[in-house]
Amino acid sequence: MARVGVLLMNLGGPERIQDVGPFLFNIFADPEIIRLPNPALQRPLAWLISTLRSSKSEQAYRSIGGGSPLRRITEQQARELQSLLRQRGIDATSYVAMRYWHPFTESAVADIKADGIDQVVVLPLYPHFSISTSGSSFRELQRLRQTDESFRKLPIRCIRSWYDHPGYVLAMAELIAEQVRLSDVPEEAQVFFSAHGVPKSYVEQAGDPYQKEIEACTTLIMAELENLLGYGNPHSLAYQSRVGPEEWIQPYTDEVIEQLGEAGTRDLVVVPISFVSEHIETLAELDIEYRELATEAGIVHFRRVPALDTYPTFIEGLADLVGSSLEGPEINLDEAAKLAGRVKFYPQERWQWGLNTSSEAWNGRIAMLGFAAFLLELISGHGPLHAIGLL
Amino acid sequence: MARVGVLLMNLGGPERIQDVGPFLFNIFADPEIIRLPNPALQRPLAWLISTLRSSKSEQAYRSIGGGSPLRRITEQQARELQSLLRQRGIDATSYVAMRYWHPFTESAVADIKADGIDQVVVLPLYPHFSISTSGSSFRELQRLRQTDESFRKLPIRCIRSWYDHPGYVLAMAELIAEQVRLSDVPEEAQVFFSAHGVPKSYVEQAGDPYQKEIEACTTLIMAELENLLGYGNPHSLAYQSRVGPEEWIQPYTDEVIEQLGEAGTRDLVVVPISFVSEHIETLAELDIEYRELATEAGIVHFRRVPALDTYPTFIEGLADLVGSSLEGPEINLDEAAKLAGRVKFYPQERWQWGLNTSSEAWNGRIAMLGFAAFLLELISGHGPLHAIGLL
Repeated sequence: MARVGVLLMNLGGPERIQDVGPFLFNIFADPEIIRLPNPALQRPLAWLISTLRSSKSEQAYRSIGGGSPLRRITEQQARELQSLLRQRGIDATSYVAMRYWHPFTESAVADIKADGIDQVVVLPLYPHFSISTSGSSFRELQRLRQTDESFRKLPIRCIRSWYDHPGYVLAMAELIAEQVRLSDVPEEAQVFFSAHGVPKSYVEQAGDPYQKEIEACTTLIMAELENLLGYGNPHSLAYQSRVGPEEWIQPYTDEVIEQLGEAGTRDLVVVPISFVSEHIETLAELDIEYRELATEAGIVHFRRVPALDTYPTFIEGLADLVGSSLEGPEINLDEAAKLAGRVKFYPQERWQWGLNTSSEAWNGRIAMLGFAAFLLELISGHGPLHAIGLL
Repeated sequence: MARVGVLLMNLGGPERIQDVGPFLFNIFADPEIIRLPNPALQRPLAWLISTLRSSKSEQAYRSIGGGSPLRRITEQQARELQSLLRQRGIDATSYVAMRYWHPFTESAVADIKADGIDQVVVLPLYPHFSISTSGSSFRELQRLRQTDESFRKLPIRCIRSWYDHPGYVLAMAELIAEQVRLSDVPEEAQVFFSAHGVPKSYVEQAGDPYQKEIEACTTLIMAELENLLGYGNPHSLAYQSRVGPEEWIQPYTDEVIEQLGEAGTRDLVVVPISFVSEHIETLAELDIEYRELATEAGIVHFRRVPALDTYPTFIEGLADLVGSSLEGPEINLDEAAKLAGRVKFYPQERWQWGLNTSSEAWNGRIAMLGFAAFLLELISGHGPLHAIGLL
């Protein structure tokens, strides 16, 4: 029987406070996150942004216990999925590949090779495709595949996105239904989907299907929810976690919460739609920041639907996805990452999208900001030069 | 039934070439590895040494496939041990805590807490106690326990060392016997134990029991081997992996290999005695460097005994150790890490041992060397400032 490696891809998260800065650096050093006119500027800019943001981010991680639970939850998902696939007669072993923190993709690939796996199913733990999430992980895996002959020989089946998969949709609806039923007047509870945002230019200029998939997904979930409950609830959708000066896809979560409060909403059932695991965005942003905002806005009950984690209906859905993928054709990483538009991503020859749409001023700005950051580090006593003991 | 967490502690190893420098930094930043008169100098010196050593070390990791297999092997050991303990009716879950690389001790402790574990057995994957291996890991865990109230409440049983445990001794003898039997004249094959060395000052000044435990262990293994084979083999013991200018415990592996070659040894059965998993010291140092040296010295067959990894007799021995520990009293981290002598380790108030025995000159030397390293980085184009994109 063929030995199947199921490669689960996710973001990763720092597990110690001292890892927050390097984790942020890895995020901002990814050209799929910030696209610059000159690739040589990527790392200095990443250093600058991660330095400026790390103390606020460290505070957020401290508020959720000192680190991200993402590796632990993802490994639990991997174990549950592996057990279920084996029960179904598939000789599967699951592996975890994080994009911005340990265990990195390199570790998963080394493990797959050491275990003598015959074929690989690549399953991003992002239901909706975005350039900056699944796309970046596919690209990373592609880079490793290009330089590793024995890994390149393994047949590969990539699952691009699965926002419309019945198992996932049902799992989401079941968890939402539980919270709706707890409301004072269940029929009137507002189901409020909050997705991670992306810059508007990703969607409008680069052809990222993310927003469309999020919208289609909420429609499917609301239909399934009505099916479960026997009545339809009002619902809304917004986008959270915006950073940087650029416009992101709208509406923004904080603005919608305020509007719902003003409109007299009493029961808010908050659904973290683009996250399948508890993470800083659910545990800190939703549970702490937005909960406070909602209370201030007059919302009486802020009920947050838990992330799917190892919810059995969800794990069954993932196992179905892997099973269907194995019955279908090979789908390589380029096919999985391709976009509908004619946008050319590689080589990084034009500045197609990023933090800003004007590229000329960046060289000078970065030089100025770099010097400012150095001064800031001298004055504040925090930063990467301190981290290695040089200041 | 009480839920038992079995915490396996090991060194850790970099899995990507770009992680080699930071991994070395973590090693040399540990005061259990290099003791300095002034703790403030620890990180600059670690930065300096890791910068100077990283390119040679990267080359070694490239020669074994681009990274260390230690995390993978340790996780396999953890899974096998967990399964065996559960078969024996112990509700055990195993966790991996690495000292110098991911997954760090913090991750294991967070997992233990999240899993609702009732009591912890701490099992260092070092059979022999040394200040610099098990000792450092116990200290690290102690630091976390002191700052974490809920972790501090968990009953803890530490296994200090297990070089004389019958299961371990038998497993070693079985693997050695296999290689001895392959020799041209099995009775004459030289059984050559190569242990990781430590500075002589650890043993003579700080009271590290490491060398005594290594010596006692080889005696036990040779007796068991004779029992298995029905004849006694000549054997020898030496210490490898020395770094720095200080004298380490002797004899050194390279010197003994040359002497054995000169004495006309044909069959050498090389036993990596202080390593229970394949690692850079077995795969690069023994299999590549010392093998070459042995061939040059006229040794005809250089047979390296594999590391224990998940060898069943070994895993059974580990399960016995955990079982006995659970039947015995609680043993806390201070008891596990204590030394026979009167040496006081904490606070770091005197320079008891380290790279050198004269402390006065270090401040000036470090300043000079730091400047030299900066120049070196400017000229060579490699180093931490390049890594973050500043040079």
